[in-house]
Amino acid sequence: MSAEKISTDKKKIFKPAPISGFPEWLPEVRAVEQGWLDHIRRVFESYGYCNIETPAVEALDAIRAKGEDVDKEIYVLERLHKDENDAKEARLALHFDQTVPMARYVAQHFNELDFPFKRYQMQKVWRGERPQMGRMREFYQCDIDVINVDQLPLHFDAEVAAVMFEILSGLDIGRVQLRISTRKVWMGFLDSLDIHTKEGGTTKLDQAIKAEILSDIDKLEKIGKEVTLQRIEQTCLVANYGFSVQTLIAPFLDLCEKKYATADSLVEAIQSHREINGNNPIMKEGIEELSFVMDQLAHLPEGAAVVDLSIVRGLDYYTGTVYETQLENFQGSICSGGRYDDLAGSYINKHLPGVGISIGFSRLFDVMRQSGKLPVGRKCPTDILVALWDEESRGEAAATAHTLRGNGWNVELYHAPQKIGKQFGYAEKKGIPYVWLPPSENENFHQIKDMTAKEQKPADPKTWVKT
Amino acid sequence: MSAEKISTDKKKIFKPAPISGFPEWLPEVRAVEQGWLDHIRRVFESYGYCNIETPAVEALDAIRAKGEDVDKEIYVLERLHKDENDAKEARLALHFDQTVPMARYVAQHFNELDFPFKRYQMQKVWRGERPQMGRMREFYQCDIDVINVDQLPLHFDAEVAAVMFEILSGLDIGRVQLRISTRKVWMGFLDSLDIHTKEGGTTKLDQAIKAEILSDIDKLEKIGKEVTLQRIEQTCLVANYGFSVQTLIAPFLDLCEKKYATADSLVEAIQSHREINGNNPIMKEGIEELSFVMDQLAHLPEGAAVVDLSIVRGLDYYTGTVYETQLENFQGSICSGGRYDDLAGSYINKHLPGVGISIGFSRLFDVMRQSGKLPVGRKCPTDILVALWDEESRGEAAATAHTLRGNGWNVELYHAPQKIGKQFGYAEKKGIPYVWLPPSENENFHQIKDMTAKEQKPADPKTWVKT
Repeated sequence: MSAEKISTDKKKIFKPAPISGFPEWLPEVRAVEQGWLDHIRRVFESYGYCNIETPAVEALDAIRAKGEDVDKEIYVLERLHKDENDAKEARLALHFDQTVPMARYVAQHFNELDFPFKRYQMQKVWRGERPQMGRMREFYQCDIDVINVDQLPLHFDAEVAAVMFEILSGLDIGRVQLRISTRKVWMGFLDSLDIHTKEGGTTKLDQAIKAEILSDIDKLEKIGKEVTLQRIEQTCLVANYGFSVQTLIAPFLDLCEKKYATADSLVEAIQSHREINGNNPIMKEGIEELSFVMDQLAHLPEGAAVVDLSIVRGLDYYTGTVYETQLENFQGSICSGGRYDDLAGSYINKHLPGVGISIGFSRLFDVMRQSGKLPVGRKCPTDILVALWDEESRGEAAATAHTLRGNGWNVELYHAPQKIGKQFGYAEKKGIPYVWLPPSENENFHQIKDMTAKEQKPADPKTWVKT
Repeated sequence: MSAEKISTDKKKIFKPAPISGFPEWLPEVRAVEQGWLDHIRRVFESYGYCNIETPAVEALDAIRAKGEDVDKEIYVLERLHKDENDAKEARLALHFDQTVPMARYVAQHFNELDFPFKRYQMQKVWRGERPQMGRMREFYQCDIDVINVDQLPLHFDAEVAAVMFEILSGLDIGRVQLRISTRKVWMGFLDSLDIHTKEGGTTKLDQAIKAEILSDIDKLEKIGKEVTLQRIEQTCLVANYGFSVQTLIAPFLDLCEKKYATADSLVEAIQSHREINGNNPIMKEGIEELSFVMDQLAHLPEGAAVVDLSIVRGLDYYTGTVYETQLENFQGSICSGGRYDDLAGSYINKHLPGVGISIGFSRLFDVMRQSGKLPVGRKCPTDILVALWDEESRGEAAATAHTLRGNGWNVELYHAPQKIGKQFGYAEKKGIPYVWLPPSENENFHQIKDMTAKEQKPADPKTWVKT
């Protein structure tokens, strides 16, 4: 963390050190990261999502417009030498996600966008957290969202999930499972409950308490059923409801212990619990939606997408479908999201429902890196190193490199007429697969050496085309 | 600039506004920007440059290690809710270029890199300047640099220039001219001068004054010869040299008025001025180097690269070859750089000479955008919109979309079974070139409609492959 100044006789040296939470990679690791980002972009675009890029900063007031408590994660910017004019400008903060900037963007450019607006965004975000083991303060997120005016077809709830599955299953990171639910099922169930009051009557849970209960359930997998029920009880007691709300909720929590291949099998499970009222209209709507989404994902491999009622997402703004993604042998979700009713509505007087998913890219990448599961990347993108015999033949060597480059190869011309062994050594060290040998004193034809197979054969730069 | 809060009956709305100096584009403009960035990356890689990406921040002390006065451009980061622990950590600042981060990176990872280290970097940088017409505070730079230990072959001085010419001439932005010089020619000339002292003797200009004179010359094109000479005179007077240094310098300044196709023609011009001492060893070394670089660029189109002695670059760290790039009908350099002897040496006790060039990407892009010279980009990457007749045929439509995607196309499945006219309208609005019509009640075969040619014909999704 700390950086120290070291003085030498010759010159003053500032010895650099890594900054906690701001990772950077060697070229061979960055090459793999670039490959991942290219793959993700390719899949996003193959489903017709357009790209936008928003500034690193937003007005601080814009970031806080949703009213959520995000302050502790916010980095603000200041000019090192600020003057009285700085105070007249809006205070700027680095964005901590891409959802807020996207919502702000859609509102700001509303009249110039076409709806349904399908966009992807792959940028770094920043979180000013205290440094902790493995906690990143700068990281890539890769998001897709669809936003529409007034009403957004359920089609997209299935599409964004299919896109993410295609991306993750193409990354060679192990088996991936989409865990899907909708907050409507839980909201409907909570809505169906008649709660005993201390005065002996019954009442319904109010909205704020329902949201708090969902927050409790969001931690189910981490803290277990017992503790979750205790927390729910606590939440309800604080709200001054009568005792034993947990006994009402326990049966539904039991449903979270299994995963369901289809919405139908969830319905069966619900029906098998006689104490659950399956007729609540919100719950029914939720199950219909879930059923549609799961049907659209039926073409995925078995087990790729499951219904999992324990998925509720912590954030209040989700209103329908919610997603998390589990990677085998990995704790926590690597890719999450859901449907929100009116996120962009904080910035414009329109009703703009949306649905989206985000990959926590850098976290996933770093987990794979640390577990040694990344392929070894190349130190440079060079396919062919053209050898340089001597200064006299530099022109011909340069022309050969130029021709090969025109044929689609990445080509370096060796930088000095050094001994050929040294040039081979350079290619080996950098992992360059081919060395091209222009005509020399000894041989009056071009040759190419395959550095892996250790084979050398005549070749013509004009016809040596990358396929 | 300012953002205002508007209250409505329904909800609180934060109306967003652009933030001066932090541009963002609509999807169709971003698509063109992405195309440019892809092109640049492709050319960088075709010459074997590897990519690195450094964090957005550096330790403030690292940024200041070169000792240059960059403070006024620096944005520092602060956590919105900082506590006493924050003061214990190194202060962080957003990088204002990619040269300082690259130098720091090379020093930090020295033992893990292979030299000569050829890297490219394409990131945003931030400058905390006062907002001004056209001045950006966040922008992309696209840099290549080569760094080696102890001694860096001149080969790379030519290569980085060739790479940049290939990039710029491939961007369809008009005629581009590389203007090349070396600070050694000017340094040698200034070194050759015998300056009259006030005491009546002669002396040599000291190093600091030479650097200041080069700073004056750097503005020659902007301020003209007369003012430049006055400034030089001023610089020398302040330094307490005798009068009329300008008469000594004027002949060499005359040489700046022309551009030279080769180093030889510059030598001829120097020789035609009898008052210039062409035998200074530094000048001779400079001319030899310039000659090598220009020879390596001789394969470029006529006028693509010229020798221009008015190019000296303002920054002190340049020690040899320097470059600027002129675009027709455009004031200022869009791509500049040079050779530096020991930039990374601020961070490590090694001698690490380098050479590099940087494209001021966002500025160039925005100039083209504002002058209406950018092609119109696509609103989305979709090639084919698959129409959806009704809910019953959704499965088949989705399968068709899947097949076409597998054939390399970017494909959207229309999101709802609406009237076909509405679906065509969506494709038209978003500029999607093809609409795919799966079998329907009326026709039992697949058809594709070319939206530009307004032609419709039978087609098979399995054989409709992107070439």
